[in-house]
Order: sequence, then C-alpha cells, then structure tokens
Amino acid sequence: MSQHEVDGIASNGRVRVGEQRPGGRAARVRSDVLAATATLLNTVGYEQLSIEDVADEAGVHKTTVYRRWSSKAELVADAVRRNAEQAVPMPDTGSLLGDLQVLGRNVVANIGSEGGSLRSRSIVAASTGSDELMAELHSFWAERLATSEVIVDRAIERGELPDGTDANLVIEAVVGPIWLRLLLTGEPIDADFADRIADLVAAGATVR
Amino acid sequence: MSQHEVDGIASNGRVRVGEQRPGGRAARVRSDVLAATATLLNTVGYEQLSIEDVADEAGVHKTTVYRRWSSKAELVADAVRRNAEQAVPMPDTGSLLGDLQVLGRNVVANIGSEGGSLRSRSIVAASTGSDELMAELHSFWAERLATSEVIVDRAIERGELPDGTDANLVIEAVVGPIWLRLLLTGEPIDADFADRIADLVAAGATVR
Repeated sequence: MSQHEVDGIASNGRVRVGEQRPGGRAARVRSDVLAATATLLNTVGYEQLSIEDVADEAGVHKTTVYRRWSSKAELVADAVRRNAEQAVPMPDTGSLLGDLQVLGRNVVANIGSEGGSLRSRSIVAASTGSDELMAELHSFWAERLATSEVIVDRAIERGELPDGTDANLVIEAVVGPIWLRLLLTGEPIDADFADRIADLVAAGATVR
Repeated sequence: MSQHEVDGIASNGRVRVGEQRPGGRAARVRSDVLAATATLLNTVGYEQLSIEDVADEAGVHKTTVYRRWSSKAELVADAVRRNAEQAVPMPDTGSLLGDLQVLGRNVVANIGSEGGSLRSRSIVAASTGSDELMAELHSFWAERLATSEVIVDRAIERGELPDGTDANLVIEAVVGPIWLRLLLTGEPIDADFADRIADLVAAGATVR
C-alpha cells in the first residue's frame, strides 16, 4: 500500500478517495473496483456478487475493497451511481422534447440490455429483503431526480415550460413507464418507446 | 366433496370453476382460496406463502388447492388478478382526466398500503428468480392493459382524444410512475401524486 493511499483515507474512514485525488492511485483503484462491481452485477446479478470476486475482477486485494466500502449494499450503490453518471448523462439538446427523448433512450439502453436488465432486476429484488440496500437505492434515486431537474430548469428558462413546473414529476413520467416494462409487463423496451413516452410527457408538461 | 365439485372440474383439469358455476360451492371455494391467498400475500409476502397456510386460511383441505392450481405461481397470479379486478375496477367518470385520476388513485390505494406494498414488492422480487412467475405476471399485465384500453376508447368516442391514440402508452404513463415510487425511489405514494400524474398524461394525450 502506498503512503498516498493511506493518506487518502486516513482523515475520514468513509471519504470518497476518488473525489480527493482524481488522478491518483487511490482514484484508479476506486474506479477499477466500481467498474468490476458493475461488470459482475451485469453478469451474475446482486445475490451472487461477492466482495472476493469484485476484488479478483479489479485486480486488488479484498481488504482494499473492505477498507473503502463498509458493505456490499454500499459498494453496489456506488457502482450504480457511477454507472448512471456514465450511461445516463444529463442531455442538453436545446429543447425539452429532445432532452426527454435522449434521457429516455439512455435509460432504455442502460436497463434494457441483457446485462442491464439482470443488474437492475436483481438489485430491486434484493432491496425488498434488505433495508440497507433499499435505503441506498432511495438515496441514489433522490440524487438522480435532483440531477435531472436541470432538464426542466432549462426548459423553464427557455420559456418552454411554465415557472413552477414539477421537475420530478416530468422525469418520473418519462422514466417510470420504462421501468414498468422492465419489472412488470415484460413489453419491449426500445428507443421507439422512449420517444413516444417523451412525446407524451413533453406535450403534457408544455400545455399545463 | 360434493358431486357438483367433481363435475365442476371433471371436464377440464384447468377450467376456472367459478366461471362455470358462479353461484355454486366450487365457485365459493375458489373465491375463498383466492381471498386467503391475497390475505397471506399482504401479511407474509410471496416467499413465505405456503399452499398449506392458504388452505388453512381458506378452511379447505390442501388437496383442494392443489387440484385447482398447478403451482404457487399460478395461484398467486389468480389472486393478483382477482384483487386487481376488485381493487382497481375500470372507472367511467365521463372524462379522460376523471378516469385517469380514479385509475391512478385506485392503483395508489392498492399498492401503496402496507399490505399492498408487501404483496407487490415480494411478487416482483420473486419473479426475478422464477421464469414461471414472471410469465404469469406478464400475462396478468397484458390482460390489465387490454382491459384498461376502454378508458382511452371512450375518450376517443367522446372526441377527447384523436383516433389512433396509443391506449397502452396512456395507461403505462399513469401507472408507471406510481410503481417507480414503490419499487425504486421510495417517494410517497398518495392520491395527490396520482392526480398530478393523471393531469400531466391527460394533457399530453389530448394535444397530440
């Protein structure tokens, strides 16, 4: 273990090392572990994922993982967070409809693939039996919805939407039906569906 | 066992007895078993539910249950079906907005309660590990979405919606965000939320 790594976590046991030293070894280790976690979630799902396998996949010792994440639920939530930031970035197309279409298409691509479906379904399933994982998921979603507000804020600035539009409602209306298909109805999840739901929601928000 | 009951199932091993003899003993047994199943789903959830406990709760012998339902997944799907018919009847208020509000509020009441939440979450969780249960759920949802089309059909007849409006999309847009809150975000599920999502979707569908 390098002195840098020790310093990186010494000041605070729960500190996100990668946020302190974006270019350092600690940040690389963190990134590798989260990428390995995402890979395993996409291939074996939540229940079968073990810290040992994550460490193997990331090429680090398992104590390195245990030192940074206090539990599997916390590690998985961080992996989900990082995955969402990369796979579902907030669009800025210049129009509400364009932004909601891109958002919907990115969600479709992220959870509709074979790996994304396994990851997403297995985490939801496990959360019903784990208060800790459920709390992590709720935090993740609160952050994502807050991040997504920028889409509505910009539409208000452009005069496309009235002041006071409920940003969360607009985002939930686009994202909810996609998850409904994944978790309940089993109907196809594709870009066409994302476009149609974005159309409906953009039209509904605009006339209000 | 009465001769009626034997006759009721003799012609077809999978026949829904209640559909043949709506007032007979077989229909009452079927109704009691499904009500008992729903009660147990609401109190112990899917994994903990056993056919023995269902039989006890319904006051019938377990062979009576096994004779009518070939598996726990099939029994639970029938209980979910019956519950949905009773708890989420298709509204006919005279307007699209009114119908979507009532639909949303009924879904909220049905899955947002403590028992409804346990039932719904535990079934979704179990479906990720059971192809049979997942197939039953997909069938149930296909039926529910088809049944819900009447809301959009009547709105088209009234001239509120254009011909060719995608009925499934409208229903999914109302129902999806409620399930998103239940299964993922943990945000409150209440009548106010149902009204706001119904407003958004009715407005979006109307202007298309």
